[in-house]
Amino acid sequence: MVHTAPAGTLETAGQPPAGRSARKRQAIVEAATALFLEHGYQGTSMDEIAALAAVSKQTVYKNFADKQQLFSDIVLGAAARADAFIATLPGAVADAGDLAAGLRALARQYLAIVMQPRLLQMRRLIVAEAGRFPDLARAYYRRVPEHVMAGLATQFGDLASRGQLRIADPAVAAGQFAFLVLGLPLDRAMFLGLDHDLSATDLDRHADEAARAFLAAYGPR
Amino acid sequence: MVHTAPAGTLETAGQPPAGRSARKRQAIVEAATALFLEHGYQGTSMDEIAALAAVSKQTVYKNFADKQQLFSDIVLGAAARADAFIATLPGAVADAGDLAAGLRALARQYLAIVMQPRLLQMRRLIVAEAGRFPDLARAYYRRVPEHVMAGLATQFGDLASRGQLRIADPAVAAGQFAFLVLGLPLDRAMFLGLDHDLSATDLDRHADEAARAFLAAYGPR
Repeated sequence: MVHTAPAGTLETAGQPPAGRSARKRQAIVEAATALFLEHGYQGTSMDEIAALAAVSKQTVYKNFADKQQLFSDIVLGAAARADAFIATLPGAVADAGDLAAGLRALARQYLAIVMQPRLLQMRRLIVAEAGRFPDLARAYYRRVPEHVMAGLATQFGDLASRGQLRIADPAVAAGQFAFLVLGLPLDRAMFLGLDHDLSATDLDRHADEAARAFLAAYGPR
Repeated sequence: MVHTAPAGTLETAGQPPAGRSARKRQAIVEAATALFLEHGYQGTSMDEIAALAAVSKQTVYKNFADKQQLFSDIVLGAAARADAFIATLPGAVADAGDLAAGLRALARQYLAIVMQPRLLQMRRLIVAEAGRFPDLARAYYRRVPEHVMAGLATQFGDLASRGQLRIADPAVAAGQFAFLVLGLPLDRAMFLGLDHDLSATDLDRHADEAARAFLAAYGPR
């Protein structure tokens, strides 16, 4: 969806529009994202991106040196969402009434975010293009999944130091939590795409089972 | 590698060679696999396949109706390897001295198979082509990962019925075992490809940690 600013809020007649170039840039990013996800990297041209964004090709090139840079900006844009999730982690378990409820809430939230259709499609696209853009796939891996697991490790380390979990290696436990929660649904979605056939209820149930197994392995005895 | 039969073993002069057409077919499959993995589906032509297999294009088409059928045969060939692994499962845990050692051995074997370079590349290729061939990706998912998890569920159900594991839902436990073991290394390899930087020792250690967590969650108390 291309955002259009409400009339008169950001633009003032006779004066260079403050948000206009930012909005054009955003329109280009959204058009390119839609086209890359639909037709792949190779199947998308800068002409088509300009047309869908309703800007001139010159404007596209003013904002992005080439198609590769545009693709890279989009892929790494997911890092901001990962950072936002990581920022919620310190409260995620602590704010719940008890440890089991906190882990369930964390698992549900984590899985719901990762299984968003846009993110699933983006993941599939990055894997598909990883042969062509190995550095980009590596940067995404570092800045998204690996970064989130490091955030989880910090939280599990804190819970262990407060005696709430029995964890020898928080990094190992974080990786196990991540893939107990995400592994199966994500793998399913890599092959079946958006026809993965898991409802929001299925995902919550899966997350609850993952949290239960994690607590059985690492909770107080 | 293209197999060539030792001279005189299968062919007899003046008589139609019994194994010759089977060998040609095998050469085509191997050439096509190598080319698909290297250049993707779109980047590979039947001409190139025939040239690498050292057969005529006519021979290629005598064996495979078109490129799509050849691709499909190769992808689903992985199902035979999955079946072979499933056949080893009944003995995998039982043959080990104790439950912990059995689960570790199973985890190590499972991970070592899935992380074979050829299989990793094939997985990445199927995901990359899943948009173009959704039915093939679905068939692969059913016949390989899902089938192996069903085999694991049967084994875990047996261990539970013998009182060796405390498992309410063997299918859930099987999925959790699978992704405790495979999840992280496989996800890493999807993004980083064969540069996943996990040695055989790293993989064994990872498998051991997975088996330990699984036993902590589901083992006798």
